[in-house]
Amino acid sequence: MTEFPSTAELVAGIRAGDRVLLARALTLVESELAPHHQQAQELLQSLLPQTGGAWRIGITGVPGVGKSTFLDQLGMHLAQQEKKVAVLAVDPSSRVSGGSILGDKSRMHRLAQEATAFIRPSPSGQTLGGVARRTREAMLLCEAAGFDVIFVETVGVGQSETVVADMVDFFMVLMLPGAGDELQGIKRGILELADMLVVNKADGDFLPRAKRAQRDYANALQYLQPSYRAWKPQVVCVSGLHGTGIPELWKLVVEHRVALEASGELQSLRQQQNLRWMWAQIKERLVETFRCHPAIKEQLAEMESAVLAGTLPPTAAADALLDFFH
Amino acid sequence: MTEFPSTAELVAGIRAGDRVLLARALTLVESELAPHHQQAQELLQSLLPQTGGAWRIGITGVPGVGKSTFLDQLGMHLAQQEKKVAVLAVDPSSRVSGGSILGDKSRMHRLAQEATAFIRPSPSGQTLGGVARRTREAMLLCEAAGFDVIFVETVGVGQSETVVADMVDFFMVLMLPGAGDELQGIKRGILELADMLVVNKADGDFLPRAKRAQRDYANALQYLQPSYRAWKPQVVCVSGLHGTGIPELWKLVVEHRVALEASGELQSLRQQQNLRWMWAQIKERLVETFRCHPAIKEQLAEMESAVLAGTLPPTAAADALLDFFH
Repeated sequence: MTEFPSTAELVAGIRAGDRVLLARALTLVESELAPHHQQAQELLQSLLPQTGGAWRIGITGVPGVGKSTFLDQLGMHLAQQEKKVAVLAVDPSSRVSGGSILGDKSRMHRLAQEATAFIRPSPSGQTLGGVARRTREAMLLCEAAGFDVIFVETVGVGQSETVVADMVDFFMVLMLPGAGDELQGIKRGILELADMLVVNKADGDFLPRAKRAQRDYANALQYLQPSYRAWKPQVVCVSGLHGTGIPELWKLVVEHRVALEASGELQSLRQQQNLRWMWAQIKERLVETFRCHPAIKEQLAEMESAVLAGTLPPTAAADALLDFFH
Repeated sequence: MTEFPSTAELVAGIRAGDRVLLARALTLVESELAPHHQQAQELLQSLLPQTGGAWRIGITGVPGVGKSTFLDQLGMHLAQQEKKVAVLAVDPSSRVSGGSILGDKSRMHRLAQEATAFIRPSPSGQTLGGVARRTREAMLLCEAAGFDVIFVETVGVGQSETVVADMVDFFMVLMLPGAGDELQGIKRGILELADMLVVNKADGDFLPRAKRAQRDYANALQYLQPSYRAWKPQVVCVSGLHGTGIPELWKLVVEHRVALEASGELQSLRQQQNLRWMWAQIKERLVETFRCHPAIKEQLAEMESAVLAGTLPPTAAADALLDFFH
């Protein structure tokens, strides 16, 4: 079993901004072994007062939308303003040896070479919940290490957008330019999570199309009740390739932050996210214990088939399984 | 303890369309007592082959949008086509003695007097999950009793729209006429559930406004990825008061049904709904058992406060509580 530096050493190193010890701590947090889990929790408890200080920003978008290039530009824009930028990822499909398409340093090559920035690929994991937990904990460690802005990217497999949106302060959705029939459309469930829609590749021949999409999305958004008193979702055009629109985009992120801090909605959001996270973990473990029970393992598939086939009422199935369990 | 007719008597009565016995069966299903619960489950198992035959339609909208008047018109339109219509409701705020504003016969007075129709107020209940279960079971009993169309209405308290949408084939959202600043906007999370937006009160002075809202909502909707291959959400104008637009609305409901039956998506939807319902009940009972554990009852409030205050990491709180539980 891998040995890690002591908790005290990790705490001191992280607070001093030591990248090597930060990376060790992140590996500790990603471990599935019980002794590592325990040490990771002690580490997080010790560092808790040093967390919370970063701007937490989620980014999603379909493969091909230009997320890496965009992040590279935005990250460098912030680095040039002397901000320390970290990029994390939630990708439940990533495998230990296969790696993920997210957090790929070769695709964010300027940021990867920027000394003050830090890019970490997604933890691999069995479940989305497990990957999300590790990423949230990675975020807390990065905050304790002094990072100013932490991006969490995801590609939108299953429920990963929902999970990332619930760990960040600001959630942006990258879109391809286009309108009408060409437009892929916003995935249902994403629209209500978005604080900003970003129409990328707004350059060259695509520019008129991008502007039209921006206008149409903005029209569509105004028919939704906003999630906050102090912020209405915005739609912007950028070119990840050329960097146009990036400074203006960041100004809006700042406006959002200032407004939500003033209205108290930012603190409220983070508190509720923490509470939901606690309950998500409780529920996940309760269900896991249930599923691992020998009688349940034996009966579940048959019960589920009968429910799907319409020959067993769902309540009767639930009753029967819970009887086996208790 | 109230006595009910035997299961055999209830089965025979329901299959024969006996309204008195149907009402007794619905009361049985609503009971919180264990022996009643057991008889209710036996009844449902016996009647299971007779269920599934109705069109299940969910309706939501803010108080004041005109839901009752609209349902009265739509219900009578169907009754005149010799369809047997039932109206059920999900209203977690209803109290045993206070009654609910939904399923109120005085507000659907023509339908309340129509011999072939049947209106039942929401079950009262402690939790949304409990109310939803009873309504789903009421729906199955109504189907076994031969009803052709079953409406389930809700007013949108908490998660009730999500819960109703997951028990019906078609979910319609009633909206007030209006546009721009006057427009209340669609509640986030509802938009992705809607198979149809219905702009009500499209009559008299409101008509131009309603038409504008219809056009704007339709524009907005085209930017969302549809949930089905075979159906794109529609926006219609109606006047619940005068009945205009109702026949056209129903034609679209029929189109939806035909299309989704042909594509297999209706069967798939109902199967997945049943499976989700089974798991929702399992999870609800697991969490309830957890919450009722003496050690948890003692520790929970303090743990939640610490998580909200930011002094205890959510994972540590979850770990600690689960340790107390096991």
